[in-house]
Amino acid sequence: MVTSQPRSAAAREAILAAAAIEFDEHGYAGTSIASIAARAGTVKGHVQYHFRTKSTIATELIQASFAQGAFLAPGPEIVPRGIAAILANTRGVAQQFQSDVRARATVRLLAEKSRIDGDLPTPYVGWMGNVEVMLEEAKQDGDVRADIDSRECAWLMVAAFFGALSVSQTLGTLDRFPHRVERLVRMLLASMAKPDNLS
Amino acid sequence: MVTSQPRSAAAREAILAAAAIEFDEHGYAGTSIASIAARAGTVKGHVQYHFRTKSTIATELIQASFAQGAFLAPGPEIVPRGIAAILANTRGVAQQFQSDVRARATVRLLAEKSRIDGDLPTPYVGWMGNVEVMLEEAKQDGDVRADIDSRECAWLMVAAFFGALSVSQTLGTLDRFPHRVERLVRMLLASMAKPDNLS
Repeated sequence: MVTSQPRSAAAREAILAAAAIEFDEHGYAGTSIASIAARAGTVKGHVQYHFRTKSTIATELIQASFAQGAFLAPGPEIVPRGIAAILANTRGVAQQFQSDVRARATVRLLAEKSRIDGDLPTPYVGWMGNVEVMLEEAKQDGDVRADIDSRECAWLMVAAFFGALSVSQTLGTLDRFPHRVERLVRMLLASMAKPDNLS
Repeated sequence: MVTSQPRSAAAREAILAAAAIEFDEHGYAGTSIASIAARAGTVKGHVQYHFRTKSTIATELIQASFAQGAFLAPGPEIVPRGIAAILANTRGVAQQFQSDVRARATVRLLAEKSRIDGDLPTPYVGWMGNVEVMLEEAKQDGDVRADIDSRECAWLMVAAFFGALSVSQTLGTLDRFPHRVERLVRMLLASMAKPDNLS
């Protein structure tokens, strides 16, 4: 079989696009090579010619998302620092999840990480590290208290972000997700900015 | 076949216990009647004698969790009101998720709700309603500002709770979940208690 490289790349791309929709809707365990083929308007053998297994497809989608800097969302403009960076980051990633099926598929696949046979990045921790750096900048800027535990607060902010995403998906209210997650992040930042009278 | 009722109930209970472990670890799509049977130390036919389909098992587990008042966690003591009730509730449910595989299985199954053919409760909204009532009490008690949107804040608190649970599960740090989720809830309550200087 003779396959020109450009044509082969386009075929792989079409399969990845179909797979992202399937993974986003049904998760890893709920998707099959057959359902990906059906979504791509082709047959199982065609998919298997380009990707040996379902794990190979999932791994390629996830690695591409991380390579493209998804979940870092620096944006085209110059990235601000501290609290402004956290808010810009939140907005950028929220909009990405709303509009980009591959970003949503990646998050869902990473929750099923243990089932996928491939070399996958650990989710959340890279983003938590970035938020930790921004919180340290916010300390220097006097926007959050000097005594907050940046690492722990970054963990909580990222977890809250993904909770809002997951609940929005389950309840079918993804349209309100960017608004809600920004509010959540602002509430958490507000609690770090002032003396805590609850503990 | 003659089956005494107590023996039949015990057999069903053993199957449900095995199914909860499988659903907690592998989700709905990743679990089969065969894997439930293997976990229960029996054969497929025995499981199918007691439960017609995988959906029937999942539905029974979920309905039992909701019927037992899981996710409401009133606790044995007299339930306080307002902020004290929110904190008691958070602690109770956090400990339940850490120790009770059926509660964790229920949460995981509800995230795959669309795949389960049964009469299932909508997740989150019952709990959100309870938190909304407690926030209204907290307003009356002067513990949160009178101008907060209780319904929206309850949505965000419940979403943050489930985000912390999900990220703890994925990163294998469920042991720190009760501590972290209490901190998260306290931060959100602190931001409601004071004038917001970020917006």
